[in-house]
Amino acid sequence: MKLNEVGEFGLIDLIKEGAVVDPASLVAGIGDDAAAYIPSPGKLELLTTDMLVEKVHFDLTTTSPWQLGYKAVAVNLSDIAAMGGRPRHIIVSLGLPADVAVEFVVNLYNGMKEICREFGVNIVGGDTVASPHGLVINVAVTGEVEPTAIVKRSGAKPGDVVVVTGTLGGSACGLELLSRRGWEDYDFAWPLVMAHLTPRPQVSIGQKLAALGATSADDISDGLASEANELAKASGVRVRLYAEKIPLAPELEQAAQMLGKRALDYALFGGEDYQLVFTIGPERFAGLPQDAGRFTAVGEVTEGEGATLAYQAGKAVKLKPKGYNHFR
Amino acid sequence: MKLNEVGEFGLIDLIKEGAVVDPASLVAGIGDDAAAYIPSPGKLELLTTDMLVEKVHFDLTTTSPWQLGYKAVAVNLSDIAAMGGRPRHIIVSLGLPADVAVEFVVNLYNGMKEICREFGVNIVGGDTVASPHGLVINVAVTGEVEPTAIVKRSGAKPGDVVVVTGTLGGSACGLELLSRRGWEDYDFAWPLVMAHLTPRPQVSIGQKLAALGATSADDISDGLASEANELAKASGVRVRLYAEKIPLAPELEQAAQMLGKRALDYALFGGEDYQLVFTIGPERFAGLPQDAGRFTAVGEVTEGEGATLAYQAGKAVKLKPKGYNHFR
Repeated sequence: MKLNEVGEFGLIDLIKEGAVVDPASLVAGIGDDAAAYIPSPGKLELLTTDMLVEKVHFDLTTTSPWQLGYKAVAVNLSDIAAMGGRPRHIIVSLGLPADVAVEFVVNLYNGMKEICREFGVNIVGGDTVASPHGLVINVAVTGEVEPTAIVKRSGAKPGDVVVVTGTLGGSACGLELLSRRGWEDYDFAWPLVMAHLTPRPQVSIGQKLAALGATSADDISDGLASEANELAKASGVRVRLYAEKIPLAPELEQAAQMLGKRALDYALFGGEDYQLVFTIGPERFAGLPQDAGRFTAVGEVTEGEGATLAYQAGKAVKLKPKGYNHFR
Repeated sequence: MKLNEVGEFGLIDLIKEGAVVDPASLVAGIGDDAAAYIPSPGKLELLTTDMLVEKVHFDLTTTSPWQLGYKAVAVNLSDIAAMGGRPRHIIVSLGLPADVAVEFVVNLYNGMKEICREFGVNIVGGDTVASPHGLVINVAVTGEVEPTAIVKRSGAKPGDVVVVTGTLGGSACGLELLSRRGWEDYDFAWPLVMAHLTPRPQVSIGQKLAALGATSADDISDGLASEANELAKASGVRVRLYAEKIPLAPELEQAAQMLGKRALDYALFGGEDYQLVFTIGPERFAGLPQDAGRFTAVGEVTEGEGATLAYQAGKAVKLKPKGYNHFR
């Protein structure tokens, strides 16, 4: 069935089902002029948004609508995670080509509903409009955080340890694999491609870090080099990274070899890992849970500016913020 | 200067200036992963969003970037107004063609900043991405409202008076005039065209109505016929409108005559007036300020369903919700 057969209001009726997983605080949702909810007393409200544009952020020949819906929400929750917050409500704007099938939109919403269910997030409204050239998805998310726990980009202090969660580089390599025929034949390619298509936002880790006193944080959407420079700029410090310490996705080395690239470059300049990079005082870093692979110290904060990268055998060099930049 | 010369981060620095007009409640804004603010104690939070797509919602040959920025915010504030709320913060996602000039984006933001200043709203963040085919603007806005004052679509009761603010039909007629050459030569065309390009959201009137006990409300974005049907559906009632009572924009009759159309049709089926239609008990309606042209009773709520339109000399007919529907 085509969208113009059910119409805008018919579509709204279709997507309402299962949109609310935490009704307690919700006073008005889908179908009113605006959503209304009761904010948690004493908490700060968080608000962020991300726009995904067809052919720029995704390619419908390599992602399913379900995966796309999942990811469109994931990248937003990741921003809330980087503030140490708990995501609460999303609103979704869709710009849809006239010939899009109703089933496509329903599957897109099913992916969104899946991740929202996982994280206890309500879909509370949105806007659905026509788009003459390709699909556009905009998600805005609210969250909440204790005023004493909020983690901004600007709090890094000389002496802090620079830490990343999980492993890096997998998503960018997965994207490159997706653009090649036959990647499905390689077992090592699958986790990399999945890391790209359905990244998991580090929401509970972000909240833990906030409670443990992280001084600054960023989610790794544009590559570690770019994020390290952002933390340095916002905090007025230098971020020094050590190449050998950066934790790479387990399958990355093998895939990079096949692609004729350097594995570390995916981690530094690739982006879309949606892990967190944060800074924290050294005594507090010692208090972090030492589960293997969860947190890795990759450098330190010093006086100065910008980010540098050092190899074990060699001098530190300036690390340019040449991650993903939409207009360069 | 082109956008790819300043880059994504250079652009963010350009638009930061003047983005915050009410810093008291703001803890983090543009430049962090998410905005953070202190919600007002005891209030409900409101959240809504609207997406504007080039060639669907606007045409850059007939609107300036400043006007477009103003309107992109206005249509969102209008949704907050329809809930009886006070708008507080917006986040802005822009999908920009690669060849767009920096000056264009700055002017777009200047229009947004102007209306935000007027209404005491902060621009607290957003996302700026590339768009291969035309400009896309998504604004999401938060607001707040007293829990006892919130006006939903679902509260209309038989016996209520149906009321509209201001005058209707001007915007849709202005849009049609814009598509014709030489409209600038007609004095009566100007206010209609301006009503289309830079509509004013009825924020303070919406708050007053909420305080005075409006039982339901909607902003008139898709034409009065569509909104009347929405209120009827959400409230489980019938909305009866009287054709002769619907207040038309002063210049509309003259313009409609020139265009060979019926003036009333613009009000019923045109849309984008961003006035409010609301319902209120008859005794409370009598208490509304009786400034000429501010509130007009256009009908009543009865048992039943759907919306009807009656002429003085004639039987009421079913009023189809055939306002602007993106997919029909």
